[in-house]
Amino acid sequence: MGAPGAAEARERIRRGEHAGPTAGLAPGYAQANLVILPEEHALDFLRFCVRNPKPCPLLEVTDTGSPVPRTLAPGADLRTDVPRYRVYERGKLVEEPADILPRWRGDLVCFLLGCSFTFERALLAAGLRLAHVEQGRNVPMYVTNRRCAPSGPFAGPLVVSMRPYRPEEVPRAVSVSARYPAMHGAPVHVGRPEALGIKDLGRPDFGDAVILGEGEIPVFWACGVTPQAVALQAGLPLVITHSPGHMFVTDRRDAEYEV
Amino acid sequence: MGAPGAAEARERIRRGEHAGPTAGLAPGYAQANLVILPEEHALDFLRFCVRNPKPCPLLEVTDTGSPVPRTLAPGADLRTDVPRYRVYERGKLVEEPADILPRWRGDLVCFLLGCSFTFERALLAAGLRLAHVEQGRNVPMYVTNRRCAPSGPFAGPLVVSMRPYRPEEVPRAVSVSARYPAMHGAPVHVGRPEALGIKDLGRPDFGDAVILGEGEIPVFWACGVTPQAVALQAGLPLVITHSPGHMFVTDRRDAEYEV
Repeated sequence: MGAPGAAEARERIRRGEHAGPTAGLAPGYAQANLVILPEEHALDFLRFCVRNPKPCPLLEVTDTGSPVPRTLAPGADLRTDVPRYRVYERGKLVEEPADILPRWRGDLVCFLLGCSFTFERALLAAGLRLAHVEQGRNVPMYVTNRRCAPSGPFAGPLVVSMRPYRPEEVPRAVSVSARYPAMHGAPVHVGRPEALGIKDLGRPDFGDAVILGEGEIPVFWACGVTPQAVALQAGLPLVITHSPGHMFVTDRRDAEYEV
Repeated sequence: MGAPGAAEARERIRRGEHAGPTAGLAPGYAQANLVILPEEHALDFLRFCVRNPKPCPLLEVTDTGSPVPRTLAPGADLRTDVPRYRVYERGKLVEEPADILPRWRGDLVCFLLGCSFTFERALLAAGLRLAHVEQGRNVPMYVTNRRCAPSGPFAGPLVVSMRPYRPEEVPRAVSVSARYPAMHGAPVHVGRPEALGIKDLGRPDFGDAVILGEGEIPVFWACGVTPQAVALQAGLPLVITHSPGHMFVTDRRDAEYEV
C-alpha cells in the first residue's frame, strides 16, 4: 500500500464513484494505456511494441489469464479498475462498458503502455503551457504517413499528438519530455505537419483542433493511440482497450520513469 | 549501408576472419546480447524481459523463423554473424560453434538485448576508468540475492557486473550510464556488496576478480548475463546464446540510445 492516492482512485473507479476521464486523478502517479487481446496474438503484438517503442512503450504485460498488473499495481484488477472500456469484435466497437467481468476469458493478456500524462505534467512543471488544456479540449491527434515496423497481423501508421509551442520554448519541451522514454519520450517531429502527411492541423483524426498562437510551432509526439489503432485494424475476434482518456491509474510515481 | 564499420566487422566475423571477443570492434556501434529459443517459450521470455528491464533491455525480437534483425541490422544474419555461439540442450552446454546454420529451425525466435559496452564507452569518454580493462581482465559478475520478477518457466536471481570508483567519481558514473536505459542504464546499487548477498568481491561468479584501489567503492550494474542464466535454468530443449564477450555488432550508433 505504498500508493494510497492511486489505490483510492482505483477503489472509487471500481465502485463506480468515478466514471469519467482520469486526467488530474491521483496527481503524481503514472497512468497507462490498456490493450487486452487473446494469447494467440500476444507474441506478435509484443513484438510490434518492441519494434515501435516510441508510440508503444511497454510498461507491463500480464500473465495469460491474469488481470493483475503485478509490477504497476499488485492490488489492482484490470477488469474493473478502468472507468470505461471499449470492446471490439473483428475491429468493430460493440460495447463501452464500465467493467469487463462478463467478457473476461482465461486466454486474455493485458498490455499496459506509457501515457503522455506523465510528460505533460513535467511540461507544466517546467513552465510550459498545454494549449489543449487551456482551451478546454482533448489533445489533437493525427494519422501520419509514417509506417510502423509491422509484426504479424499488426501494421499501420504512426499516430501523433500535437502541442504548439513558441520557438524559444521548443528546446525545453524536447528536453523535458525526453526524460521520460517510457512515456513516449522526446517529440518525433518539430514544425512541418506536411512532412508527416498532415494536410490540415485544423482537422485532427482524433481529439479536438487547438488554436495555435501567433508564431507558435506544432510539436508532434508519438501517441498511444497508435497501438490501439493497429490492434483494431488487425481484425482480431476480440480486443479490449480503455476508452479514450479513461486510463489505468498505477501505483508507480511519474518520477520513477524519469531518466 | 549506413554503417560500413559495423557491416564490415560482421562480414569479417561471417568469413571467420574475426573469431575472438568483440570488445573494441566497430567503435561507436552498439553491440548486443543474443538469446535464441523456440517460439513456444518466446511469449514467456518476452514477458520476463519486460518485467526486468534493467538486466533485460529489449532492443529487438525477430519474427519467428527469421534470423534477420530488421531494426538493428537489416543486412545481417544472426546464424553466422556472431563470432562464437553457445548451444544448450535442457540447460547443458553441448556445443560452442562459430555458426549455428546446422542448428537453425523454423520455430526459433532471436532476442537482442542491450550490452554494457555502450555505457562503458560513455564512462571512458567522461574520463572514468574501467578497472577491469586496465587490469586486463573480464568484468567481474556476481549472482545476487535479488529475485527477478518471474514469467512462466523463467525465474532466477539478478546478476550484476561491478566496476570500482572513487567516491567523488560515483555521481558521474551514475549520471553517465543513466543516459543509456536501453543498455542497462544507471547502477542498481552502490557500495555494500553484502546487501546484495555478495560474500566476497574477490570471488565473482562469472568473469574475473579486479583489484579495488585505495578508497574505491564497488558500483553494481544490472548485467545481461541475467537473462541468459534464467533461460538456461528453465531447462528448455534448446537455447542458443552468444559466447561470453562475443557479441552481435549492430548498425545502430551508441548515441542513438542516449536519452
